[in-house]
Amino acid sequence: NVMFEDKERHLCIICSKGTLDMAYPGLVLANAALMEGIDVTMFFTFWGFDMITNKKMDKLEVTPLGNPSMAMPNGMGIPNMMSMLPGMTGFATSMMRKEIAKLDFPPVREYMQTIADAGGKMYACKMSMDMMGLTKEDLFEEVEDVVGAMEFMEMSEDAQVIFI
Amino acid sequence: NVMFEDKERHLCIICSKGTLDMAYPGLVLANAALMEGIDVTMFFTFWGFDMITNKKMDKLEVTPLGNPSMAMPNGMGIPNMMSMLPGMTGFATSMMRKEIAKLDFPPVREYMQTIADAGGKMYACKMSMDMMGLTKEDLFEEVEDVVGAMEFMEMSEDAQVIFI
Amino acid sequence: NVMFEDKERHLCIICSKGTLDMAYPGLVLANAALMEGIDVTMFFTFWGFDMITNKKMDKLEVTPLGNPSMAMPNGMGIPNMMSMLPGMTGFATSMMRKEIAKLDFPPVREYMQTIADAGGKMYACKMSMDMMGLTKEDLFEEVEDVVGAMEFMEMSEDAQVIFI
Repeated sequence: NVMFEDKERHLCIICSKGTLDMAYPGLVLANAALMEGIDVTMFFTFWGFDMITNKKMDKLEVTPLGNPSMAMPNGMGIPNMMSMLPGMTGFATSMMRKEIAKLDFPPVREYMQTIADAGGKMYACKMSMDMMGLTKEDLFEEVEDVVGAMEFMEMSEDAQVIFI
Repeated sequence: NVMFEDKERHLCIICSKGTLDMAYPGLVLANAALMEGIDVTMFFTFWGFDMITNKKMDKLEVTPLGNPSMAMPNGMGIPNMMSMLPGMTGFATSMMRKEIAKLDFPPVREYMQTIADAGGKMYACKMSMDMMGLTKEDLFEEVEDVVGAMEFMEMSEDAQVIFI
Repeated sequence: NVMFEDKERHLCIICSKGTLDMAYPGLVLANAALMEGIDVTMFFTFWGFDMITNKKMDKLEVTPLGNPSMAMPNGMGIPNMMSMLPGMTGFATSMMRKEIAKLDFPPVREYMQTIADAGGKMYACKMSMDMMGLTKEDLFEEVEDVVGAMEFMEMSEDAQVIFI
């Protein structure tokens, strides 16, 4: 007698970056998966902690430094020398925020709330929290729990796991 | 009565970076998977768009800035101060291109063509295309279609998904 | 008559970065997976080669350059201009090493040894080794073999694959 457990499709996204450009891919994928009826678990670790830290999540930045792909509106890359000038990170950040808003994607906190409201589960990495000297009170309120890597491994059984 | 759908192995590669050093891992994995008879879907998003943008795909760069791993031929890292000098990105890029050619790996466009010829499917991310103000005409001709994240989620069911 | 091969859960981690902050996520996940009884295969490629190169694995660095997430102890980001100053990479690196040690996580080489002792399999990417002009003798002794991408694809069948 063969038993089938009809497993739901499950997407686990490990968010390890705290820049605006690497926060959105995780948010967009999480949201799209939820809209497709897929279970979603987000696990925030290392710099990805910025995405769930109350003092930082509204201020994520993007920098042209070390990223030759980042282009000026005229399509020219920002030369390294120039990207060092004070203000260039702020300029690139504000440009990207505008582009994101123009396409009707919400800002980070609002997007996170949408994902949580749609049933996406959010977990913070214990090691990262300890390293950064933060407590649960410093974190976005929709974060379910602070868990270690072993617990994450248990959660991600049978899941598609993406590391961003 | 139990039915088995004999699913083909399927690899989905999300390419989100536009640097030479992070373009090749996706190309190498895609090509290797195809040679092993595995279905391959590549999804280009954010900076990974440079890999399929006609004006950029032949000019991907690598920069020592912010990458302490990048070494000079003598094995010494390029110090940050020095990596700011005009020309260092060009120098590192030309060195890496030579190393890649020496090992008989093709340049980006040719490699992409090989992958497409071997049956690899390539899709562009709609959000990224809109953000960058590009149209389908700006893209590498083997790009099958421009799709949203929900469509990508549908395509990647049962696939091994890698985010680069 | 239906046959089930009772497949072990298998985690494949592709390590492509050589910075301290991107080495630890792979180490932590590998170790946690092994402690959960999950098979682990690590594949080192591109800058991730630094994690298995004897001359480099004890000296991995982290740089605030191009990483607006990296914060000073007081919570203030290191401005780009300042992160160019000689010594800032060394300062950030030594701070992170201290934080890691304080949390009782071992240094890279020791962590790698723990993972190998627990049964984690380590493979070096052939293309990367050739690019860097290294030989097997330059590599951490627990590295099982030097393999190409096709062999990696064979090894990772039925695995959860993570690209870091």
